[in-house]
Parts: sequence; structure tokens; C-alpha cells
Amino acid sequence: MKKLITDKPFVTESGDVIPDPVIAYDTYGTLNDEGDNVIWVCHALTANSDVEAWWPGMVGKGLLLDTSEYFIVCANILGSCYGTTGPADINPQTGKPWLKTFPAITIRDVVNAHEILRKHLGINGIHTVIGSSIGGFQALEYSVMYPDLIRHLVFIASSVRQTPWAIAFNESQRLAMEADASFRNGEPEGGRRGMKAARTIALLSYRSSHAYNLTQKDEDDRTDHFRASSYQEYQGDKLVSRFNPYSYYCITKLSDTHYIGRGRGGTEKALSRISANVLAIGISSDFLFPAADPKLLADIVEGAEYVEIDSLYGHDGFLIETELITSVVKNFWKSKKEENYDKKRA
Amino acid sequence: MKKLITDKPFVTESGDVIPDPVIAYDTYGTLNDEGDNVIWVCHALTANSDVEAWWPGMVGKGLLLDTSEYFIVCANILGSCYGTTGPADINPQTGKPWLKTFPAITIRDVVNAHEILRKHLGINGIHTVIGSSIGGFQALEYSVMYPDLIRHLVFIASSVRQTPWAIAFNESQRLAMEADASFRNGEPEGGRRGMKAARTIALLSYRSSHAYNLTQKDEDDRTDHFRASSYQEYQGDKLVSRFNPYSYYCITKLSDTHYIGRGRGGTEKALSRISANVLAIGISSDFLFPAADPKLLADIVEGAEYVEIDSLYGHDGFLIETELITSVVKNFWKSKKEENYDKKRA
Repeated sequence: MKKLITDKPFVTESGDVIPDPVIAYDTYGTLNDEGDNVIWVCHALTANSDVEAWWPGMVGKGLLLDTSEYFIVCANILGSCYGTTGPADINPQTGKPWLKTFPAITIRDVVNAHEILRKHLGINGIHTVIGSSIGGFQALEYSVMYPDLIRHLVFIASSVRQTPWAIAFNESQRLAMEADASFRNGEPEGGRRGMKAARTIALLSYRSSHAYNLTQKDEDDRTDHFRASSYQEYQGDKLVSRFNPYSYYCITKLSDTHYIGRGRGGTEKALSRISANVLAIGISSDFLFPAADPKLLADIVEGAEYVEIDSLYGHDGFLIETELITSVVKNFWKSKKEENYDKKRA
Repeated sequence: MKKLITDKPFVTESGDVIPDPVIAYDTYGTLNDEGDNVIWVCHALTANSDVEAWWPGMVGKGLLLDTSEYFIVCANILGSCYGTTGPADINPQTGKPWLKTFPAITIRDVVNAHEILRKHLGINGIHTVIGSSIGGFQALEYSVMYPDLIRHLVFIASSVRQTPWAIAFNESQRLAMEADASFRNGEPEGGRRGMKAARTIALLSYRSSHAYNLTQKDEDDRTDHFRASSYQEYQGDKLVSRFNPYSYYCITKLSDTHYIGRGRGGTEKALSRISANVLAIGISSDFLFPAADPKLLADIVEGAEYVEIDSLYGHDGFLIETELITSVVKNFWKSKKEENYDKKRA
């Protein structure tokens, strides 16, 4: 992981100021002389810039994020706790951690932080921006905010607007966190029990009834300490050991702000700004963003492609079905290259 | 609401003792001389004995629970806070509320409490036991534990065994409650914030993405205070104003104990004890107990009928689709009556 220490105040969409934010990022492969062989990966909620770690089988020679051909960039999102400035960091104006005073940020703020990094890295064009879930929110915003930069958009298990359904899941998570007095009172080390519960709620939206019933079944006559209970406990504890509760709360709020049409006269007008080739991928069992959600992008954007992946893993399929995603995206690139070639010949 | 003050200690399945439990109940219509024109209604998680209130359009002359023909009984479940003994009541042995010391109870305990009431009311036979969700758990247990009593079983949006998926939802709710220190510390008035969060989690399992996205959509450019958030808040607060957190925690645990095959050599052996005519009803959009769950009962029990109801309301369809349920159950009764007549003629 590298860190870009910025030297300018960052002004958020709502006008708040984050002085000198840090942007943590990873890169793989080599930037070409034109500065445009770039795949920009936008990570989902609690991931980080280390794509190799959270998307195994995707980064490397011959893989989708092919380091022999592309310069792969992933930046940790604003508000997170993996190096980029977020609520757990010190507010230089007070000398204390931001915690609950961290500004309310939007997906557009996240993209503008990506832009600072892009310029710093000397990138002139992005071959593909790719993101799943709230990574898809960023990838889509990037394509609308900076259309001239981006040649392909890959939008997986995501939505043009955060859905009421997903907001409701996030709200339940926040209510669980607010039930924890140590979080409510803003104790710097507080909020762990609340976040533990919150994570287990999110998990329900990432999987499917089928997956739980298949993998967490008890075969005996017990009347307590069920496998499904232990699984929730385990997954909640796992996040507590690696994530900051104030960051977690912040990024659920961030996630809810997503609406591509905001201030742009609605979704269709906003999407008409895109000049990238668009591929939307839905996951058949996705329960958080049912396949109809990503499909809507392809329905609206002229010439966009939509592919539905068959998976048992629900929303988490985007992390697991790497072979399928690789093949679908490679086909998309190939077809766009051929179209381009045909156009040039015509 | 009436109350039966019992005069014997109640011994639970696990051997704990509840001294002199109270059983709150409602009845509608008149018991016949034979004492067998009874429809026994088993209520779901946070409902109570007042069937008219929580199942509008179902109790009355000409309705499914026809008071001109049947004697309708509904008892508040053990562990609840609507009159039947539960964690919020005083433990006579200590003079203090039970709260977290209330015994861990099972669906079989709930049925045995129903049995005390049945005998008290002079009921000799039950025409139909009907229940949805954990009401279905009770109705099914009743039919297995006391097969000679029951002539028809109507089992709606329920399961022969609590599923890992439903346990995971309940576990997330309990983790939210445990994040609330006032609950963790057993404060008599504690646990409200935790239960508020918990209720909103349950709600996600009772509805569908479709229903949320349809009814809780924002039409403007807001970046906070979304309708879906307010809805979760509102529903959480509503339960807080009417339910006791210690009872709520207790009945989620109660719900998880349900396994019809426990100690009976498995599900199929247990179900072979049933002598009632069985009707299982699934709801197409049910996300907590997908239609395959109630259907399994009909697949196993010989001669059982299965009907799937088309509804947009998810699990909550059992509360809303009263006309459909009425027609399906009336047809079932009619066909069983005709079969019976044909058998007698043969």
C-alpha cells in the first residue's frame, strides 16, 4: 500500500472541508507511455486498496486484471479505515479523531478523491473502470462525472440509485450501532458490539436463504447454539477485528447517498453523459441488488450490454464467481475491440 | 382477554419450573355440547390472543373463523407479554421480574400450556388448528403431540424445522439487543434501543425487496433522511411502544428451538404420528419461509394438500391475504367433508 499525502483541503459535495486528506492506494503492472492502459478498480464497502487480497484470482499475468498489459489502480475509499482519511483519523483542526464529526460524504466525493490520485499518478485515460456493489456506484459516477476519461465501464451487482431495500438494510445496521451506548456516546474505542450486530445484518443481504440452509444446517437435536448462530457471531467478530465502527457507520451513510440522477435532471439524463462502453453484470441469486437493478443501467444506456451470471452465492457472487466474471468481461472487451476495428474499416 | 390462573407448577421440556403460570386467552363463538366445534388459532411472534385485532376480516359470522359455527380459541404464548407468563412478570420465588432468568422454553412447552387451557375450557376435540409462521410451529407440534384431538391442521408460511436462514435473522436481532448495555445488564426497563433495531431486522425478513422499493421510494434528490430509513425507525418504535424486550429476546430463542423431529427419530417419523387432515399454504414471495418450506410438510404427510398463494407481501402475506386464505381453507374443509361422506357411503 502506498499513500498520497495531499496538500490541499478537500471540499465535499455538501461543502464540508477535510484538510489535507490522505489517499491510500495500490497499483499493479506498469503505466504505459500514453498513460492510458489503466484499469481502475473501485472496491466495495469494507474492502481496501489491496485487490489481490480481496479479489483473489483476478490480478496477475493472464488474469482479468492482467499486469502484463494493464496498470491496475485501486484506492481505498474516503471514510474507510485502510489508509485513506476517515472518521478514525485525527482531525488536524482539533487534534482529536473525527469519529462522529467526520463530514457526511457522497459517492461523488469518493470519485473526486480518486481523481486527485489519478492526476498524481500521471494517468491520462482509463481503459476500464470496474466496480461491484458500492464499487459499482463509484465506477458509474466516475463514468458520468469524467466521461472523456473512461473507455469501458463494468458495473457488477450494483444499481443506478441506492434502493429503498438496501437503505432499509443499512438503517437496521445503524440502529443496531446506535443501540450501543459506547458508540452513541462517541467513545473512541466504542461501537464494537453494535458493529458486530450490524455486520451480521449486512451478511444476510450478501448471501441467500439457500446458502444458509445448505451450509449452516444442524444435523442433531440441539435446542440452542445452532450453527447459523455461531456463523453470525463469527462473521460479526471477524469484522470487529479489522474495521473501525465509526468508519463503518460513515460508509453505510455514504452508500445510501448514491443516486446517479441527483442534480442532473434524473437518471436518464445523467446516464446520457456516459461515453464509455457499458457492461452491466447481474447475479441471478443476488438478493441485495436483484439482477433487475444492474440490468436497468443497460436498459437505459444505448448500446450497453447486460449479462446475468448464474450463481448460488447471492450478492457475494461478485467476490466468488471470478472465472465467470473474467470470461464475461474479456468477451465484452473483445467485442468492443472488434466493433472499433469494424468502425475504422468502414 | 380472559386469564386462566393455573394452580400447578409448569415443568418445561428442559426441566425448569414456572410456578403457577397465567394463560391469557380469547374465545369467540360458543362451544357445542360435544365440546368439539373448536378452531384453535396459534398466533405468531409478537401477536396476542386477540385474533380479531391482528387478523382483521377473519373472525365473525360467515368469515373463516365463523363464530356462528365454531368456538374460536387463541391463547397468548408462553414467554410473551400479553397476559401469559413471561420474562417481564414477577417470579414468585424471588419477588422480582424474571427478565433474563426466565426458563428457556420450546414450542412444545407452548403447546403444553395450550393443553392446560383446552382442558380448562372443556374442549374434547379440535376441528382445526391453524397457525402461520411460529403459529404454524405450534399448530404442527399440537398435531404431532396430541393427534387424537385434532381433525384438521392448517399450516401457513411455516416450516417443519426452524431454518438456518431464520435462525441467522434471529441471531442478528439478538446481537443487536446484546449491543444495548441496558439489556445486557438486565435493567428492568432496559433493552428498548436494542429491540428497536431488532424489530427492523425482522421486518426485512417479513417483507420483500419489491415491497420496499415500491412503497419507500424517494422521488427527490435528498442525500439523507430517506423514506426507507424513516420507515425502519417508525416500525422499530412501534414495537418498542407495545412489547417487552426480555419477552422479545425469549420468543426469538423459543422460535429457534422448533424441530418437529427432535427426540422422535427425525421429521418423517414425527409427522407419521399426525392423524389430522393437513393443508400447507405457501406464499410465493415469502422470503423468511420460502414456499418450499411449508410445501415440505405436504410432501411428507400422505394425503396432505399444498396450495401456494400469489402475493406481493412476502411473509406478511399471511396477515394480509385473508380473502385468499379464507377461500383456500374453506375449499380444503369442503373437500375433506366430501371425502368423509364418500367414505361413509362406501
